[in-house]
Amino acid sequence: MIIINDRKHVVSQILDGIIFLYADQLKRISETNIITQKEVLKNQVCLLSGSGSGHEPADFGYIGEGMLSASVSGELFSSPKQAEILNAIRLLACEKGVLLIVKNFEEDVREFLAAEKEARAEGILVEHVIVNDDCSVEKFSLKKRRRGVAGTVLVHKILGSAAKRGLNLQELKKLGERVVMAMNTLGVATSSATLLGTNDEPLFVLPKDHVSYGVGIHGEAGYRTEKIKSSENLANELLNKLFARYSSLTKYPFAILINNLGNTTALELSVFANDVSRLLKLNEVNVAMVKSGNFLTSINMSGISLTLLELREDEWIDYLKAETTAFGWS
Amino acid sequence: MIIINDRKHVVSQILDGIIFLYADQLKRISETNIITQKEVLKNQVCLLSGSGSGHEPADFGYIGEGMLSASVSGELFSSPKQAEILNAIRLLACEKGVLLIVKNFEEDVREFLAAEKEARAEGILVEHVIVNDDCSVEKFSLKKRRRGVAGTVLVHKILGSAAKRGLNLQELKKLGERVVMAMNTLGVATSSATLLGTNDEPLFVLPKDHVSYGVGIHGEAGYRTEKIKSSENLANELLNKLFARYSSLTKYPFAILINNLGNTTALELSVFANDVSRLLKLNEVNVAMVKSGNFLTSINMSGISLTLLELREDEWIDYLKAETTAFGWS
Repeated sequence: MIIINDRKHVVSQILDGIIFLYADQLKRISETNIITQKEVLKNQVCLLSGSGSGHEPADFGYIGEGMLSASVSGELFSSPKQAEILNAIRLLACEKGVLLIVKNFEEDVREFLAAEKEARAEGILVEHVIVNDDCSVEKFSLKKRRRGVAGTVLVHKILGSAAKRGLNLQELKKLGERVVMAMNTLGVATSSATLLGTNDEPLFVLPKDHVSYGVGIHGEAGYRTEKIKSSENLANELLNKLFARYSSLTKYPFAILINNLGNTTALELSVFANDVSRLLKLNEVNVAMVKSGNFLTSINMSGISLTLLELREDEWIDYLKAETTAFGWS
Repeated sequence: MIIINDRKHVVSQILDGIIFLYADQLKRISETNIITQKEVLKNQVCLLSGSGSGHEPADFGYIGEGMLSASVSGELFSSPKQAEILNAIRLLACEKGVLLIVKNFEEDVREFLAAEKEARAEGILVEHVIVNDDCSVEKFSLKKRRRGVAGTVLVHKILGSAAKRGLNLQELKKLGERVVMAMNTLGVATSSATLLGTNDEPLFVLPKDHVSYGVGIHGEAGYRTEKIKSSENLANELLNKLFARYSSLTKYPFAILINNLGNTTALELSVFANDVSRLLKLNEVNVAMVKSGNFLTSINMSGISLTLLELREDEWIDYLKAETTAFGWS
């Protein structure tokens, strides 16, 4: 049972709730789903991201000094639309340009790039980075999905910090692309999200005590379903698949992100973190940073995603560890 | 379905997971369930709290400069034992004394006060504050329960900050007692916690789409069950009961804590925050601070608790807003 009011107003009420909670830092542009810093810092490139609602605290939770300048929210699990994204780009009015951070879903890419095209036609300096950290595969074709998922938050952090230090629009775009190349995420769920539809039906159904590996963030089922054995077993499956994406586990240090996909508890996240820790140690991985919490959720899905970022450049860890006022990062 | 390993080792694995995640700030005393600051600050009164496990991030999440010095964890929903609490008091070895912050449950009070007595017999300077913010009533007798619940986190923050500023043990005890008198919490759940027992049975059963008002944090059912109408309706019921505990809503400003009791989603918390905000405004309540998140959970209970603290002394808001390194507060 989900605690909401009329489903028609859920997105607007989420945004107003966030403004009540973080009134000292954030503001909502009236009659839009755009949230910005209370005072947008314009002496740097502005970063804009967004996605469908249901992924809270993404992306408004990452607005703040050293991360994003603004976010645009769409309806539940549905990308914000071109007109609203364009509106946000215009409102930012950043002389040093606007960088769009886009998750690799068909609708998101289409809407963001259409807005970018229009903004450029108006003479606005704008570029984009597409995040495609998901290394799950399609169940039958085994085609790589490369969706944009929780790793997006690490891109927000690194680029936000780099923008604050003065990197220009082209430098940020290239940095973002290099970070995306070094990053992989894989998720597992013990139950699917429900879309707050009239029947609260789950988007995919798992047998009791089963898990689905490689789930998406919009209720997409994974590549394999099996009976759940233990947290250690889940950590093992995810890490082994993630490790296979890297030619060496010891050449560079790694940043690790453990993400609650919805209604996983603090207790479970801690136990899972311990299993991840033991397997990283066994594989002699040098962990330069680890974070665990609610970073990019999928409404009420029960599950966890794990992101590995190989820190190929020395500055990345400094960018990740730099201060930010964004509430979702802390 | 809960993601854990062998139930016998769950507490130890939670604690090890937390140390992996916050290795730069926290350490576990080996072969105990005691977690302390990496370097305990001894030029001030040390604050020690604790409770059964299942309430993560309570209480280890509140260890840090400006909050607690250490925490002791019991088994799931079961108080830490006298011997372990005494061990923690001894280990802290704070010349300025140790203040115990205890939640008002029979077992917790018994174990903490027994440890206090022994410590005093050894010549250690030790005092306690008992937190009893819960304003729910028993279903039939209507007797006030006054359990210690999420408001405990505000006590950790205020006393932690005051200890850092140099208040002595007696001053802190009295300050804590005044804060507790000004604070009330009420919770609501749409489903009970399960105790990770062999059958994963919920501790109380609610009919589909029903809520229980006035729930405890150990699976205790509330004072009334009814069909869920809306988030606004829940906010209304909780706030009206809480308002009734104060003679005026406009004499002092208030601090507000919205607490996820387990697996409530970020989406629901935001919608609920918006409803709380509207009702506070209607009642002309001056909100000096509001926080929302996972502060004191009850394993996988779905629900929210709401805490109101009337800020009767000017310093309280400064203490609440002061910086801390504790990860659970941010």
